[in-house]
Amino acid sequence: MSINVGIAGLGVVAQALLELAKKNADQLNDITAKTLCVARLASRRLRDEVELGEIAFSTNLDDLVTDDDLNVVIELIGGTDAAYDLIKACLERGRGVITANKAVLATHGNELLEIACARNVPLAFEAAVAGGIPIIAALKTRFPANDINWVTGIINGTCNYILTAMSEEGVAFEDALRKAQDLGYAEADPTFDVGGMDAAQKLAILVALAFDVPIEIDEVYCEGIQDITLADIRHADEFGYSIKHLAIGRQDEDVIEMRVHPALVPKDNLLAKVNDVENAVQVGTTNTGVLRFTGPGAGGDATATSVIADLTNIASGLYRQPGIGGGALKARPIGEVSSAFFLSIAAADRAGVIASIGETLASHGISIASMVQKQEEVVRSDDRAVIPVVILTNEVAEHELDQSLRELESLEDIASPIKKIRVVDLA
Amino acid sequence: MSINVGIAGLGVVAQALLELAKKNADQLNDITAKTLCVARLASRRLRDEVELGEIAFSTNLDDLVTDDDLNVVIELIGGTDAAYDLIKACLERGRGVITANKAVLATHGNELLEIACARNVPLAFEAAVAGGIPIIAALKTRFPANDINWVTGIINGTCNYILTAMSEEGVAFEDALRKAQDLGYAEADPTFDVGGMDAAQKLAILVALAFDVPIEIDEVYCEGIQDITLADIRHADEFGYSIKHLAIGRQDEDVIEMRVHPALVPKDNLLAKVNDVENAVQVGTTNTGVLRFTGPGAGGDATATSVIADLTNIASGLYRQPGIGGGALKARPIGEVSSAFFLSIAAADRAGVIASIGETLASHGISIASMVQKQEEVVRSDDRAVIPVVILTNEVAEHELDQSLRELESLEDIASPIKKIRVVDLA
Repeated sequence: MSINVGIAGLGVVAQALLELAKKNADQLNDITAKTLCVARLASRRLRDEVELGEIAFSTNLDDLVTDDDLNVVIELIGGTDAAYDLIKACLERGRGVITANKAVLATHGNELLEIACARNVPLAFEAAVAGGIPIIAALKTRFPANDINWVTGIINGTCNYILTAMSEEGVAFEDALRKAQDLGYAEADPTFDVGGMDAAQKLAILVALAFDVPIEIDEVYCEGIQDITLADIRHADEFGYSIKHLAIGRQDEDVIEMRVHPALVPKDNLLAKVNDVENAVQVGTTNTGVLRFTGPGAGGDATATSVIADLTNIASGLYRQPGIGGGALKARPIGEVSSAFFLSIAAADRAGVIASIGETLASHGISIASMVQKQEEVVRSDDRAVIPVVILTNEVAEHELDQSLRELESLEDIASPIKKIRVVDLA
Repeated sequence: MSINVGIAGLGVVAQALLELAKKNADQLNDITAKTLCVARLASRRLRDEVELGEIAFSTNLDDLVTDDDLNVVIELIGGTDAAYDLIKACLERGRGVITANKAVLATHGNELLEIACARNVPLAFEAAVAGGIPIIAALKTRFPANDINWVTGIINGTCNYILTAMSEEGVAFEDALRKAQDLGYAEADPTFDVGGMDAAQKLAILVALAFDVPIEIDEVYCEGIQDITLADIRHADEFGYSIKHLAIGRQDEDVIEMRVHPALVPKDNLLAKVNDVENAVQVGTTNTGVLRFTGPGAGGDATATSVIADLTNIASGLYRQPGIGGGALKARPIGEVSSAFFLSIAAADRAGVIASIGETLASHGISIASMVQKQEEVVRSDDRAVIPVVILTNEVAEHELDQSLRELESLEDIASPIKKIRVVDLA
């Protein structure tokens, strides 16, 4: 039996997919006991360097919908509008879809999954989160007889590359970003990655699978890495932590935390060892313990192999379709999340400042785990000499901490704003 | 539809399985859209502390074969003879089998897989390798359109616990072993674990899946950790390495290396960070890059959840049966494997010794990457003062190295035997 595949898009992943499917045709036919055939491709424009051979080409995505000889359509155009229209139309026509597009899932995933389930056609998206890491498959099949307590991950390669370069080579954020752009690890406009939105979209998908809830991108608290300085990284290092951009989903009874932000991670946690563009996802469960997955988070070949894994499962009739989560998602606002915090306070070098910081924190019930005054790092701010006071607090609800920081910032001897970074120790 | 399950054995994993299946019955029925029912259990003896309720119990394993109401039998008795008879008889009767038993697979796996494939009944074994880590599922489904180049892992928790304790607490092998026994991480007779056989059996299974070859336990080179000393760990540390007990499968054209032994691992390799009883498996591929999986390698609950993952896949009709590897396995003898080596040579403290070590190695084409003479560590051997000379070589075929070591050991100024530990850097 033949499985006819249509492809939307002709970018890096699509090109890698065409190449790998061709090169491994015998193997794929063997695994699936079907004849896999890329029959049609639609993209805005043809690329001279890509040889399509027998593949029907058009610039009209609708041709992937109307060609009823196709069994599966692979959506690799990205973005939300055209991709949404295409996926929806294919599913409604009873055609299976594979997508690598986290954005369309984060914004329209619930509706699309609902259509897929109602129509009993596959909608697969292993490639949409953490590139080559089989985390979607694991979340779908690996954790029966478990409650998942939390999912944490490094799921944006651009942020991880930049933070690694800052930490290991001592280069400032802007220089690390430029290097990432030179290497093709960051876009010309890097906002989506370094601002955390890319990770937020992926987290919303992971959380939906992990906790059986709908995808709710608007409920993800999102902070990027733009404000992390070399001094922060050095101070964290002295306390025994690395700074990583983390995505965290945690269930606490019926409430779910979803947050992406820079975080201090203890150096002996595996996440602290995941460097450069590598991705990692950790899943904490009641009965299996903690499972950790690391691998390439992006790249044409790695992403294409995730698409092919979905394709072979669908073609073999062995694909397990996740549904849309049954329960509503009750999100915990970031203010109600409790963490330990790293604080960096620029304070005037005057007797009594340290005491007043300690008193203010104490008056909010916040205890200090470590405090170091960086006498040697005196800088000027607002025309006076200030010295970084670096603090690790014990655990406290964030809204309580924020109140104490507003109070501290109102003191004459303390410069605004105070830098705070959350400490995460889920292992 | 009802899926009737029979269980063989009533040990730690079986008890955890009964407990988890009961507690999560609704969830499991929901996932599989079937009614899962543990209908029968056979074990040498009943345990008073286990409540079997409606489950039919007998001490005769054959009852699991003759009860044709059973759809799946879960083999948790361990060992090779009775387990082999049971699994074979079930498969031949057309009954699916799930096993957590690496030993029976390592010795009879090819025959059993052949029967399963011929009869088209599932034989599943996620729990047999690396406990809770879904590495069998990954090897079966994650790597289409890839060649797997190598698989490495820490797949014996006992060895990893002992080496971690030696390294982090500075306790000698015997003391670390005793501690492992006290904690239930090592058997009263620990030979099978610390001698490497347990890891060898698991490696033979991993290699068969990774490279599509038969399971050939006799071709696995096997060395344990009994001879690793605190001095070795300290010296390796000074060179920037941790000592881990590794399992390594590597394909080089049509030849396959299979070896388990202690190894120096660079400290920045993820395997160096996997401590205590945790397990890890890394897979190096042509197109997906390197994927790493870590998690609990043993424990009743973690192992039982792997069994349950197999069971839900089988009950849902979504289990992918691996076949028995098509090609023959052409193994590379350990002598023909090339590595860098760590050498620890006890040499008389006399002028010229270092020079003669260097000359002997050089005469075999072996170059030295680092050499340190531990002047402060003088010890007595054969009634004379000897000093450890610690060497890291560059890469060399092992038979060539061994010849040079025999030559060195014949020198009057050098004590026998010379300690050698392979360096592994697959990342």
